[in-house]
Amino acid sequence: MTLPAPLTGVVPPVCTPLTPDGEVDVPSLLRLVDHLLEGGVDGLFVLGTSSEAAYLPDRQRRLIVETVVGHVAGGVPVLAGAIDMTTPRVLDHVRYVTDAGADAVVVTAPFYTRTHPAEIARHYRLVAARSPVPVLGYDLPVAVHSKLSAELVLELAADGTLAGLKDSSGDEGGFRAVVTGARAYPGFSVLTGSELVVDAALAMGADGAVPGLANVDPAGYARLYRLCREGEWALARDEQERLCALFGMVRVGDGGRMGGSSAALGAFKAALYLRGVIACPATAEPQVPLSAEEIAQVEKSLATAGLL
Amino acid sequence: MTLPAPLTGVVPPVCTPLTPDGEVDVPSLLRLVDHLLEGGVDGLFVLGTSSEAAYLPDRQRRLIVETVVGHVAGGVPVLAGAIDMTTPRVLDHVRYVTDAGADAVVVTAPFYTRTHPAEIARHYRLVAARSPVPVLGYDLPVAVHSKLSAELVLELAADGTLAGLKDSSGDEGGFRAVVTGARAYPGFSVLTGSELVVDAALAMGADGAVPGLANVDPAGYARLYRLCREGEWALARDEQERLCALFGMVRVGDGGRMGGSSAALGAFKAALYLRGVIACPATAEPQVPLSAEEIAQVEKSLATAGLL
Amino acid sequence: MTLPAPLTGVVPPVCTPLTPDGEVDVPSLLRLVDHLLEGGVDGLFVLGTSSEAAYLPDRQRRLIVETVVGHVAGGVPVLAGAIDMTTPRVLDHVRYVTDAGADAVVVTAPFYTRTHPAEIARHYRLVAARSPVPVLGYDLPVAVHSKLSAELVLELAADGTLAGLKDSSGDEGGFRAVVTGARAYPGFSVLTGSELVVDAALAMGADGAVPGLANVDPAGYARLYRLCREGEWALARDEQERLCALFGMVRVGDGGRMGGSSAALGAFKAALYLRGVIACPATAEPQVPLSAEEIAQVEKSLATAGLL
Amino acid sequence: MTLPAPLTGVVPPVCTPLTPDGEVDVPSLLRLVDHLLEGGVDGLFVLGTSSEAAYLPDRQRRLIVETVVGHVAGGVPVLAGAIDMTTPRVLDHVRYVTDAGADAVVVTAPFYTRTHPAEIARHYRLVAARSPVPVLGYDLPVAVHSKLSAELVLELAADGTLAGLKDSSGDEGGFRAVVTGARAYPGFSVLTGSELVVDAALAMGADGAVPGLANVDPAGYARLYRLCREGEWALARDEQERLCALFGMVRVGDGGRMGGSSAALGAFKAALYLRGVIACPATAEPQVPLSAEEIAQVEKSLATAGLL
Repeated sequence: MTLPAPLTGVVPPVCTPLTPDGEVDVPSLLRLVDHLLEGGVDGLFVLGTSSEAAYLPDRQRRLIVETVVGHVAGGVPVLAGAIDMTTPRVLDHVRYVTDAGADAVVVTAPFYTRTHPAEIARHYRLVAARSPVPVLGYDLPVAVHSKLSAELVLELAADGTLAGLKDSSGDEGGFRAVVTGARAYPGFSVLTGSELVVDAALAMGADGAVPGLANVDPAGYARLYRLCREGEWALARDEQERLCALFGMVRVGDGGRMGGSSAALGAFKAALYLRGVIACPATAEPQVPLSAEEIAQVEKSLATAGLL
Repeated sequence: MTLPAPLTGVVPPVCTPLTPDGEVDVPSLLRLVDHLLEGGVDGLFVLGTSSEAAYLPDRQRRLIVETVVGHVAGGVPVLAGAIDMTTPRVLDHVRYVTDAGADAVVVTAPFYTRTHPAEIARHYRLVAARSPVPVLGYDLPVAVHSKLSAELVLELAADGTLAGLKDSSGDEGGFRAVVTGARAYPGFSVLTGSELVVDAALAMGADGAVPGLANVDPAGYARLYRLCREGEWALARDEQERLCALFGMVRVGDGGRMGGSSAALGAFKAALYLRGVIACPATAEPQVPLSAEEIAQVEKSLATAGLL
Repeated sequence: MTLPAPLTGVVPPVCTPLTPDGEVDVPSLLRLVDHLLEGGVDGLFVLGTSSEAAYLPDRQRRLIVETVVGHVAGGVPVLAGAIDMTTPRVLDHVRYVTDAGADAVVVTAPFYTRTHPAEIARHYRLVAARSPVPVLGYDLPVAVHSKLSAELVLELAADGTLAGLKDSSGDEGGFRAVVTGARAYPGFSVLTGSELVVDAALAMGADGAVPGLANVDPAGYARLYRLCREGEWALARDEQERLCALFGMVRVGDGGRMGGSSAALGAFKAALYLRGVIACPATAEPQVPLSAEEIAQVEKSLATAGLL
Repeated sequence: MTLPAPLTGVVPPVCTPLTPDGEVDVPSLLRLVDHLLEGGVDGLFVLGTSSEAAYLPDRQRRLIVETVVGHVAGGVPVLAGAIDMTTPRVLDHVRYVTDAGADAVVVTAPFYTRTHPAEIARHYRLVAARSPVPVLGYDLPVAVHSKLSAELVLELAADGTLAGLKDSSGDEGGFRAVVTGARAYPGFSVLTGSELVVDAALAMGADGAVPGLANVDPAGYARLYRLCREGEWALARDEQERLCALFGMVRVGDGGRMGGSSAALGAFKAALYLRGVIACPATAEPQVPLSAEEIAQVEKSLATAGLL
């Protein structure tokens, strides 16, 4: 399908259910997609950071896009990450995810290498020139160690290189500058990657949200989105605060035994497992898994939020 | 061939000559390998950072290993980088580079993801368990944004997970701790990735060096290594200082138009081009290339160093 | 006067007008205070980062507090920064700024030294124990290179160590956690240091704002605050966006000739000079001053915003 | 006395003995100075980072300079740190430490504020213009979060702004560039702040060393310096490695309970206490002190090194 311009609403970064031996658990993935669609989401983003794309070999990445695209069958748009270090490697990912039917690709700045804004611009222009589908920028300094400035994003919006932005930078001033500046490019989609300030982002004028926690509570984020659109800001704040409390689960594993990503992904997958959506909470190697006690804390979080 | 234990001497990270349209220039690569062997190097490291591994699609990476392994035909050991974000993806690279004949693999800590020392240890243990050849750690915080501590390296040396370390961290205290501690593991190779303090590293007890600049002047580094081994420290210092001056070429492009890696790789490739070793100084996308004026400055550097 | 608990509204960090030879320009400072009070602000924060406290010798700092406290004569509360590296030095500042009449002190985490959350907590407890007036935490990782976590702030709110927080961290999730958690401590003041998301911060439940740009347009921020309190979110957004555009002035000097702080402070002071509030736009040494051309751009910014 | 040009040898950063209630323990300070002089050091550096200058109010700083200058009575040069955020504040420190008799001042780049190389240069030029004694640059990125580039240091050496450099950056390439480049300015002193690579620094051509650990074992560093000057590189390496092992004491407190500086300073002071040099191992607030068990580990370190 053609990507809506702009893309609006809740577009969760879809977790990747794995079997205990590290293969993609396709039945669980299908159940997860159904769970998200039933929750009322407006699109799906596969192969993002919350999808553990950094851990998935190419054959698994391709299988995931094929599986999800086939299952939703055009019901909602499917965006796919093309996450790799530089342009030539990203282009390989663009090729197979679009062959597999992705409706848009989501691309970070180059990483591993020490890059420069001029090279980031060049990177996006080369990718966009060869991608058969729209390209969204993915601003994730915590992973790629450079920041997409508002100036650069708006320049790439103006010339049609980028069709949108997923902003996971946590830089509220820069995000606002993109939201405000992008009003000049009506089809351009500005999406926040935050779990915690979706109400604020929508109040500023963002088009939608891509919160990892929406895997666990898609209906909550769909409700939050609707309340914001209806201008019910007080109710939206209550819903957002409920989701912020639920998000506390990402810290259950954050006691110094594992990396920050592992703690967050481990919690999301434990929650999906406890809610009966996926068959196994395993995360990919070499992430340290949550302990039984930590999973019990996730369970308590879910219970408090009325999600069990 | 079996990797020497320890591996000693000069083991340059082999640049990857590219054609103007971004393909591997195999004839130039063969000439570069001959140039390095004639310079007196003791091994070759392909698919490292100076090889632009971050920019090379898998098919190009594989071609490079096959080409170089075939050409040296066991004359010197060939180490290959298996540079990717996490364990499952690294294992895919290990598979094809060892199929192609690499004598050892060189592996960084996980990157892109926020990792933890326990996860780095797990990563190396998993890779080592499945690699048919020895695994060297690659400490490169500037690219992967975490540091291999001396404690961790020595723990992985003690249990046989790692066969050696390429240290490009610039942390002289940590490097010395590894050198000193690794005396307990006689086959373990400690190699500095520095261009600038090879004499100091060898004086401390390091086994060898992996300097990117050795592409440009392999004979200089071979001479430096020999002088250090002979205890001719004053002459070694003179040679090292000559090479430090030559290294100044990495700054000709560092005036704010491109990333730091692009400036350094652009200079090395310009020098190889000017010395008649490779046919084209192109670097991979999206790196900004050196200007004609900057290439002329590289030429002046080479002339000063007596390399033209 | 006793600090309101909580302190609400707009509390600008008061710029420090200097003479061309680097002395405090007292008449200009008095005019600036009048300009702020006429703009409708609810308090004054002297000796903060925007006050160039880092550049002011102790005798100048003391003079500023005395001047401002004397001039406002209890009309609004005066908060004073006690900005220094560690507890013993901060306590010296606390002493003289409270002797001079400050109604509260604002204190960062230790800096220069590599600190630890336990030491930050200890620091605040020691300062609070010896301060005759309430202590507010000042979260400014860009300057002090450590972050006050929401957990730590709420722990120090719970035991009465801190009376409030000025959050200039730009970490929207952490800010929200403090705002939400601090509802349990009704007198605790949560103030955002942002210029750009005051509407969002107030919508979340913050008590007030400490925006540097309020020096230039105090009436604008006072209006913004009032609109938010009245629930006029759409009008508030318009006002906030106007102020965001005005804030663009901080980038006129940000072309690589000076530090980021110098560019911002230079612009604020140029604007105050152009608006006729202060006699001289000089910033303290060793900051590079704005050029005449850059000052002309600030003038254009002011004109666009209707402030000339 | 006039500062030697260049200053050579071992110049320890003198620890500041404190009483249990945080006052300068003058008798202990005098014993410490005697201990250092008897160990054979060539100068003294007071009010540096290892002196806890960041924790000392001005009146304590002044007392320390007066005490030490009076006690050594011209026997060796006394350098004093003038550690503060920016030029105007640094100049205040320069004034009283030189009034108290310091033979040179040691000054970092501006910190707390986001600075720029042009502003760092301006800072040093202003300080040098008003200092009655020579000014040494202090490169300590871990504290001030900017790096003095070799280019900048050599520019300031060339025009006589700086009389020398204390390099605690850990950047071996940059250090070498200064050492090599400074041969053009024969009176310029290049001193390494490292404890761990003094032999390497001297082999490169450095003039001397300023190692914090020399508080604990001044005779060891004096011996190391002598061996290097005599070209006894193998014996020097043995001595250096003994000192590296002793330096391991800085990690006894580094288990997550305190900051890295606190652990190192706590260990040095515990060692001085255990060796009978100072009366009390207290560190300044808000540093977390070593536990009794950690102090016992320092004792074991000393015993192993033959220092008890």
